Amino acid sequence: MVHNGIEYADMQLIAEAYDLLRAVAGYSPAQIADVFRTWNTGRLDSYLIEITAEVLAHTDAATGKPFVDIVRDRAEQKGTGRWTVQIALDLGVPVSGIAEAVFARSLSGHADLREAAQDLPGPAPKPLDGAAAAAFADRVEQALYASKIVSYTQGFHQIRAGSEAYGWGIGLGSVAAVWRAGCIIRAAFLDRIRAAYDSRPDLVSLLSDKEFEQEIGAAQDDWRAVVAEAVRQGVPTPGFAAALAYYDGLRADRLPAALTQGQRDFFGAHTYRRTDREGSFHTLWGGDRSEIEAG
Amino acid sequence: MVHNGIEYADMQLIAEAYDLLRAVAGYSPAQIADVFRTWNTGRLDSYLIEITAEVLAHTDAATGKPFVDIVRDRAEQKGTGRWTVQIALDLGVPVSGIAEAVFARSLSGHADLREAAQDLPGPAPKPLDGAAAAAFADRVEQALYASKIVSYTQGFHQIRAGSEAYGWGIGLGSVAAVWRAGCIIRAAFLDRIRAAYDSRPDLVSLLSDKEFEQEIGAAQDDWRAVVAEAVRQGVPTPGFAAALAYYDGLRADRLPAALTQGQRDFFGAHTYRRTDREGSFHTLWGGDRSEIEAG
Repeated sequence: MVHNGIEYADMQLIAEAYDLLRAVAGYSPAQIADVFRTWNTGRLDSYLIEITAEVLAHTDAATGKPFVDIVRDRAEQKGTGRWTVQIALDLGVPVSGIAEAVFARSLSGHADLREAAQDLPGPAPKPLDGAAAAAFADRVEQALYASKIVSYTQGFHQIRAGSEAYGWGIGLGSVAAVWRAGCIIRAAFLDRIRAAYDSRPDLVSLLSDKEFEQEIGAAQDDWRAVVAEAVRQGVPTPGFAAALAYYDGLRADRLPAALTQGQRDFFGAHTYRRTDREGSFHTLWGGDRSEIEAG
Repeated sequence: MVHNGIEYADMQLIAEAYDLLRAVAGYSPAQIADVFRTWNTGRLDSYLIEITAEVLAHTDAATGKPFVDIVRDRAEQKGTGRWTVQIALDLGVPVSGIAEAVFARSLSGHADLREAAQDLPGPAPKPLDGAAAAAFADRVEQALYASKIVSYTQGFHQIRAGSEAYGWGIGLGSVAAVWRAGCIIRAAFLDRIRAAYDSRPDLVSLLSDKEFEQEIGAAQDDWRAVVAEAVRQGVPTPGFAAALAYYDGLRADRLPAALTQGQRDFFGAHTYRRTDREGSFHTLWGGDRSEIEAG
């Protein structure tokens, strides 16, 4: 099930990369097919990247147009992505990349909402040319790779949490090895994941593997530049943006969740914990605002 | 239930606004309390904005520090936000803003992952000063308001979809009126929503209401600037970014979902629809790549 959730995320990230290469770099589908073919010789080497190039290079016989331009842009789904997110919510595991992929598919299918939104104001992308487009394409590869690391981090977190919750004792390195052997998301990348778990079976998160940490660290400037550019130019990149927010959320020294806890205590006396001592506390917001120890 | 989902989203957006005012504008909690008090006299007038100012203005008696700084930054949840998202997934309604709010809370609670991620590389925010900070704060108000419109759009979409699926015949204007009368998310904003549905009970989406369309259109430049700045400076804004991606996704003339459908047809013969005629089609990807009509 989580395999399919990750597959949804992988496909959404690839779709966003394609959309950016088309709208911002100004490339044709055939040119983008070449970009994906090149990427497929590097660290993104995978079945999905390979078939993306095939689909983008294909010409529709009936019209002579690029195949991708005659396909209706409403993605369908069988339900395994949705199911992954629903279980992740039960397990308390943030799988924002998979969720955004599921939502992007359902959004694409709401023809009535999309039609009603055609007049909403926003920028029209201005394609770059020449060297700027090529440099942007390189940045998109970094953004795609970094976002992919986050998707797999989230998916493997879910498997670990599920394995702990149900006492399955799943070895995460073996999961990577099985998927590597043959499935939709088969990729050289899975060897890296297996190696990470083989060297540290107790790895709390893929992001804490030294090699992934270095790679995502090297990618993050370009990743930020790509998301900022997408936001400025009005190209939707829910997957890239969610992955980056997860990354920045995890590495944050302090999160504004402290304010959330303060609000919850104010309106519902849900109590909060303190940074400087143990226990649960409540402030008498409606009274003299002194603090009492709770429960 | 959806009320509570929207409440989660509202609280997350407020938390992100606070975080940005703190990290990027360089304001103290007391200064941010003043900003929220000012916002509360305008279109953001609401119970949650009001109590946010109260919480931020509060000083911890034991330490003399701002209260928000002594609260542990791990948000808890009772489960209604999660439940909203799970049902939305069943209904096929994209509620990315609510989902990101639920995930942000669960992320904040994963102490082990956060600790392991403290060394991940990224920029340290450089606070603006003086006039630049004040201008940024104004932009954050725009971003918060625009993101809030999207949250409510998603939540009301879910209520409409649920009402249709279960034959409840819920009047969306009445929902806004009931919530307005008294609940955590009570706000002047709900009068606007009621007015929108009163004038057009069949409104397919809040975003297609002329007034909301104009307001979000006027806000979108600042909204983009705020998300781009957050991304550059490494401040996590999953809610703002998800709302903007939803907005840009809905208004897109073509979505890369066409590529997703092409991939699905390639690896699973799931078929696709064409833009130029009815029916379901499949391309013989493993053969001569001719197209056949399916089913």
